[in-house]
This record gives sequence, structure tokens and C-alpha cells, in this order.
Amino acid sequence: MLLAIDIGGTKITVSIASQEKILIKMFQSVKLIGDEMTIPKQIDNLIYLACQKISITEKQIKSVGISTCSPFVSIDNYKAIAAPNLCGGLGLRQKELKNNWQRIPLQEHLHKRFSCVEMENDCVSAVTAERTFGAGQGFENIIYITWSTGIGCGAYVNGNLVRGKNGNAPHFGPIYMVDCDQNSGNASYEHLEALASGTAIARNFGQGSTKDAFEQYANNEHAHNVVDNAIYHFVKGLISINYVLDTSKIILGGSVFLNNQELLMPMIKSKFFGESFTVFSDGVEIVASDLGEYLGDLAALSLIMPEDWIDKWQQEKPWLSAPSAVIVE
Amino acid sequence: MLLAIDIGGTKITVSIASQEKILIKMFQSVKLIGDEMTIPKQIDNLIYLACQKISITEKQIKSVGISTCSPFVSIDNYKAIAAPNLCGGLGLRQKELKNNWQRIPLQEHLHKRFSCVEMENDCVSAVTAERTFGAGQGFENIIYITWSTGIGCGAYVNGNLVRGKNGNAPHFGPIYMVDCDQNSGNASYEHLEALASGTAIARNFGQGSTKDAFEQYANNEHAHNVVDNAIYHFVKGLISINYVLDTSKIILGGSVFLNNQELLMPMIKSKFFGESFTVFSDGVEIVASDLGEYLGDLAALSLIMPEDWIDKWQQEKPWLSAPSAVIVE
Repeated sequence: MLLAIDIGGTKITVSIASQEKILIKMFQSVKLIGDEMTIPKQIDNLIYLACQKISITEKQIKSVGISTCSPFVSIDNYKAIAAPNLCGGLGLRQKELKNNWQRIPLQEHLHKRFSCVEMENDCVSAVTAERTFGAGQGFENIIYITWSTGIGCGAYVNGNLVRGKNGNAPHFGPIYMVDCDQNSGNASYEHLEALASGTAIARNFGQGSTKDAFEQYANNEHAHNVVDNAIYHFVKGLISINYVLDTSKIILGGSVFLNNQELLMPMIKSKFFGESFTVFSDGVEIVASDLGEYLGDLAALSLIMPEDWIDKWQQEKPWLSAPSAVIVE
Repeated sequence: MLLAIDIGGTKITVSIASQEKILIKMFQSVKLIGDEMTIPKQIDNLIYLACQKISITEKQIKSVGISTCSPFVSIDNYKAIAAPNLCGGLGLRQKELKNNWQRIPLQEHLHKRFSCVEMENDCVSAVTAERTFGAGQGFENIIYITWSTGIGCGAYVNGNLVRGKNGNAPHFGPIYMVDCDQNSGNASYEHLEALASGTAIARNFGQGSTKDAFEQYANNEHAHNVVDNAIYHFVKGLISINYVLDTSKIILGGSVFLNNQELLMPMIKSKFFGESFTVFSDGVEIVASDLGEYLGDLAALSLIMPEDWIDKWQQEKPWLSAPSAVIVE
């Protein structure tokens, strides 16, 4: 059996899979009050409940894959999660979060009970899933980009998963972009996420959600400008990351992209190929994620799936018939 | 014997090394008039002359390493050089170059006679040399950055040399940065090289060379501002590339850096660590290239050096006693 854990900013999903199928999925709102062991203990309980529900013992689990928001810090050769949307002690969202921890030593905690515990950030896990089961199959050089409330990236270069020293590569959201105030004419450096993420779109729109901004794109000049501006910066980022990683295929996912891909895809392609140096953009394909809503289920599993399961999973696509998630209050 | 070829914008150097030492170095100004086979034929002749001079035949050469300006395009699984400073047909420097070729099919040409021909761009080759013989020894995650007339990058991530699909990764010079006109207040995207390279410093200074600008840094306000502005953008680029590659060690080389490192190093470190998100900058070392002026000799050789030569070369450093280069008119 394999255990997959998906940790987002709002909920934690735990699934267990056999060689044949996904046996159970359970999720619960993430617990953000207590100490740095609160989330590891919450996960322990979810594992206990999931095992109980399908009548197995924890010892039957061979490997654990964790796909999580990040970044990570390294402590004694284990990765600990130091994500600003979970760790109030990092100070970035302290008021909201009401906790004071700076890191979550989850890998070390689980490694005491499970011999194989692979933990990667959600985009690194996602690119693993896309290369194993999705649009990246057969490619040595791929990039997965999520355009969602944040912006993230996972990549294979020459067949190697790009992790970096602490598993924080290729962090795409904070790369520097131009922040140009059209009114004042002042310009400065700003992070890509601050200019183009779903959060930035909603903030710049100021008259509703990101979804509202896209819905009013055709009829509301302000919505139109806000979305165009996000696309402008997003594609500049895409061009830069392709200069750095020299990829064959860019796979786009995330709610901002997937919910608006008919509008976005032609604009992204036109700008990307129009503005890149040809020698770098030639031969690059830009496609939407094949796995879409199933990416969450597959990301953590892909980190630990044994070689001899993969053929069967590629053919039978058991994620399509995964059970609905059991909600834990 | 190993054959190393170093191709710059102005000269080509050919060297031959045995397991004990560098036997000969020859260089000639690069020939830029003719057809796309002009440079391959020039190299054939240099190989012929070098072999003759040390009384060996070409057949005694086991492998060929090429370190060259780039980018590359891929033709029938061989890399061809498509560098704007060599290929007038690319249109970027056509007036100066007076040739019309768009690519130089050097790897394929040499592969007809030599069974192993490795070709990488000068920074990818340089980072290989730094990891084998220089400041990168023992590290899995390193970046080499050249700050020179241009700006380039080579990297290992998790022990893997980062090449990308056509060997153009990690192209650092053209990533997007902020171009902000302090007078007009207009801002737009500009490539890092256009803002921070030696060429940009000289152009912005306008009263002499890059060297002059640095010499007048302390006493000429304009020189001071021009250099500060280049440092400002250079470090923003360095922060972005570290977000993307999550490295352990940044090794700085290139004439702009090496000739001014007493001024530059403290400013680079202070800005890098002051402006990065701590979680990404923690544990990063920034150092000057160990190999300095010898990097050119070692870069192409490092691409092809057999495992069983490396220990001896690391201990005896035969590059320090390499013969002076023979100039071919």
C-alpha cells in the first residue's frame, strides 16, 4: 500500500492506494493552532482513521508521499515545511494564522514509522505526476506551472527532477518582475506572484473575486485591463523560466489557468512565441494539464509509485474511479 | 590525448592534453567571412597544426571537448552553434559580422573523425571545471556566473549538470529585469545583460570603457551611479536564479567581477543576503572563481576528462604549468 498526503493552505488530504486502485481519500481542514507538532499529529490521526476505515494496519503501508505547500528548510537531513501560509512564526501572515511555529518537522516525524517518506512541494510533485501519467509522458525536459492563488513551478531537466539543495527549486513565484505604476510612472522590482497570481488579480480588480474579473473581461474595461496586465507579467515570467530551463514542453495548470483556458491559452502562446528569442522558443510546446482535477490525487502518489505499478496505472487510470473523499470534521 | 577547443567571440584556442599535462595551446583570431563551414575548417587547420607541432597524429586523440559561445540549435541530434556574435545570418550583428550564416554545424563535422565530441556553452563548461577542479568540488548544487562583456550561467542541480533540451540552460543573460528610466519615469522589461553586463556599463558610462567606469567609481558621481545601477540589477538577477535553482554555492567569475572583486564582493553579498527571502538565501555561499584565468583552459577539458585522470589533475594542477599559447596568424 502507498500513503499519499496532500497539504494545502486550507485542507489536508490523505489517501491510500493499492497496486489496483485508490482505496480511500479523507480530508480535513488544516489545524493551525497549537505547536509545530499540531499538523504532524493531525496527519497521524487521519492516517489512523483511513487505515481503520479500510481495515488495514499502518504497518501495511510501504511508502509515504507528501505533496505540500512550501518552501522547506533542512534540519538534520530532513525537510521541514516553512510555508508562510501554514507557519505564523514566519511573520508573513501572523495575524491571520494565530500560530507561532516557524517550521513543521513532518518528514522526520513520519520517518520514525515509515522507511520511505518522500516530500516535495506541490508543483514538484505535480510535474512528477504529469511526467508519469499526464502530458509530460516521454519527455526529458518539461515544466509544470500552476497559475492559481499563487504561482508555482516544477521541472524535469534532462530527465532529472529539479529539486535543489532543500527541495525549493524551481521556485517561480518570487522571481523578480517589473512593477510599473501606470499612474505615477514609478517602477520597481516586484515578485511575479505579487503581479500575476490569482490573489493579485482579485486585489487589483478590487470589485470582486478573480473569477468575477475573468467573467467581466469582455464587458468591463477595468476587469479587462487587470487580467491583461496579469497575463503580460505571467508570460514574461514564462519566457524567463524557459531561458533558464530550456524546456520542450510547458504544462499549465492551476485554477486561474484551467478555469479560463479558452481565453488564456491563445494569448499566452501568442505572447510567448512572439516575445521570446526564437532559438529558445522553437520546439517548445505549451499545453494544458492532462490530469486537471486529478493532479492532487496523483501528485503525492507519483513521488513513491514503484516502477512495476506504473504500466498498470498508465493503462487503467484508477484515479478516474477513485472514491469520493470522506470529510473528517 | 584529449583535444580542447575554446571558441570566443574573437579568438579560437585549441589545446591538447595528455594524462600528465597540457602539451600545447594554439590560438587564432576567429574567421568570420565565408560560409557556415569557415569556422569548422579553421578548427581543422588548428588541430592539424597543433598535432604537427607535438608530433602526434589526429588518430591519437580520444575525445574532443568544445566550450563555446552559444546558444545552440539542434540539427539531427547534433548541436550547431547559433551565437549572435559569430553568426551574421541571425541578423543581430549583421553589419559588423559581414557573414550570412545562421549556424555552425561544428559538432557533427568533428564527430565524423572523433568518436566523442562534447560541446557545451562556455558557462556550462566552466561550471564543470569549477566542480571538478575549483570552488565547486564536493558540492551537488552550484551555480557559476560569469559577469563579463555578457552575463552567463552554468549550474549543477542535485549533482546533475543542467543542460536543457538543446544545451541552452541555464541562460541567465536574457532573463527579464526592470528597465526604469530615472528621468522619464518610464519602465519596461529589459534583459539582464542589457542592464548589467560590461557592455551595458560602458554604454551607460559613455565616457570610456567599463574599466574606466570602475576606476572612477570613488571620484566620479556618474561612474559611481552607473556601476551601482549595474550591481543593483545584477544582484536582483542573482536572487531570482537562486529562487529557481536553490543552490548551495554561487561562484562568480568573468572580467567585470574578477577585476573589481574587492569592490563588488561585499556589495553583492550584502544585497543578496539582505534582499532574498531568508529561507532561500540561508546556507548559500558566494565565492570568487578559484580557477580565474585558467578557467578557459580547463572548461573544455573538463567536459571530456576521464574519471581516472581526475585525481592526478586535482593534485598536480597541470594547468598552472601549461605552455604559453602559440599564436597562429
